Amino acid sequence: MDTLFQHKSIRNFTNKSVPAEDLDLILRAAAQASNTGNMQWYSIIVTTDAAIKQELCAKAHFNQQMVAQAPVVLTFCADLQRFTQWCNQNNAQPEYDNFLSFYTASIDATIAAQNACVAAEKLGLGICYLGTTNYNAQQIIDILHLPELVVPVTTVVLGYAAEDMPLTGRLPMRAVVHHERYQEFSEQEIAEIYKAREEESQQFVNENSVDNLAQVFTKRRYPGENNRVFSKALLGVIQKQKFKK
Amino acid sequence: MDTLFQHKSIRNFTNKSVPAEDLDLILRAAAQASNTGNMQWYSIIVTTDAAIKQELCAKAHFNQQMVAQAPVVLTFCADLQRFTQWCNQNNAQPEYDNFLSFYTASIDATIAAQNACVAAEKLGLGICYLGTTNYNAQQIIDILHLPELVVPVTTVVLGYAAEDMPLTGRLPMRAVVHHERYQEFSEQEIAEIYKAREEESQQFVNENSVDNLAQVFTKRRYPGENNRVFSKALLGVIQKQKFKK
Repeated sequence: MDTLFQHKSIRNFTNKSVPAEDLDLILRAAAQASNTGNMQWYSIIVTTDAAIKQELCAKAHFNQQMVAQAPVVLTFCADLQRFTQWCNQNNAQPEYDNFLSFYTASIDATIAAQNACVAAEKLGLGICYLGTTNYNAQQIIDILHLPELVVPVTTVVLGYAAEDMPLTGRLPMRAVVHHERYQEFSEQEIAEIYKAREEESQQFVNENSVDNLAQVFTKRRYPGENNRVFSKALLGVIQKQKFKK
Repeated sequence: MDTLFQHKSIRNFTNKSVPAEDLDLILRAAAQASNTGNMQWYSIIVTTDAAIKQELCAKAHFNQQMVAQAPVVLTFCADLQRFTQWCNQNNAQPEYDNFLSFYTASIDATIAAQNACVAAEKLGLGICYLGTTNYNAQQIIDILHLPELVVPVTTVVLGYAAEDMPLTGRLPMRAVVHHERYQEFSEQEIAEIYKAREEESQQFVNENSVDNLAQVFTKRRYPGENNRVFSKALLGVIQKQKFKK
């Protein structure tokens, strides 16, 4: 339980490699997770080769150095390829080339990823998820040779932390939890929910040369134009990988 | 670590309720999970009211009795509503009405869900994920009063197991893990990977009156016609909830 509450993302790793038996345990923990119909519609690509990590870093993950630096990069993929091949060999007609199957497989891949992260942290490793996976899915497909019916969903880098990071705060629980049904927030409730976060982020706001924390997100980190460009790219990749129906 | 390896889905619960302090711990474990930009683009709807659980069971989850029976039903939602409202109150222009933002929020909701499951199992509770959430998202939206920019991603039922279930097997690790890059499987490799699963499922195949295990999935459990109908419905819901761009 402590492992869950002590989670913090690590973006700076030592050059110590991950013992093979620990990596094996992490991957097996991922595979034991819940998944739809026990079909395991996901794959995990384990990249430790320096040249491939560097390629992923530069071409897919906006040069975030942790991708090249971390000893292990795990790319979790929605994978209907293996299952479809098995069906085809068994006189069964696989019809999983549709959005629902892709989305279901994405959820399964993510559940597996989080189990891997919990196991890694339990073993004293640090982890970080990379959202860039969804921005540059095609580049990852090219680098990792992902076939049709396979789409990368999320990436986790793991290794030993090179620095001790503080725990990052979360919104008050009343922001996230609704009892029985969804209750929309009043303007005052929204102001209260985000108050502490805004107060602790003043330096971050100044560094970004904007008026407040909300504008850090809308103007700097996740602006509309980027969202629309990457949305179009991601939907294009999903279709190109044959999840069309 | 044992918690991860002893996971098994529980579909039959006693009538013992979940202590408030345990539920609180489970929800806080969920909220401590990794999430994109620490924006927490998700919400958790906690349903314990018998009438609402019954409604979810009958209208959204194909009458799977565990939904009415379990003391707690957690619906994890992708939620851009709260964040958008906060931006609007802060002279920041939120442009998160697009597929990428929805998909990112889905991943965050799923990571939170798996942390909740690990915490629940650590506390001695049993859990089960419900894939029906993606089939009948509109019904869940109606029952739980989800506003625009909120879409249910997955549902977890939890409570105390009424029966001791055996661990379910997984495919051999070589089916799921690829080293460095994706390696496609030969026909023989596919046959080997699924061999043990096929052998242990013979009774299941007979009960379904089909020729083999693959046909249980393609003809009975996840047939193409259903996949296409539910795909169309899910894409429609995502757009209707304003993730259009």
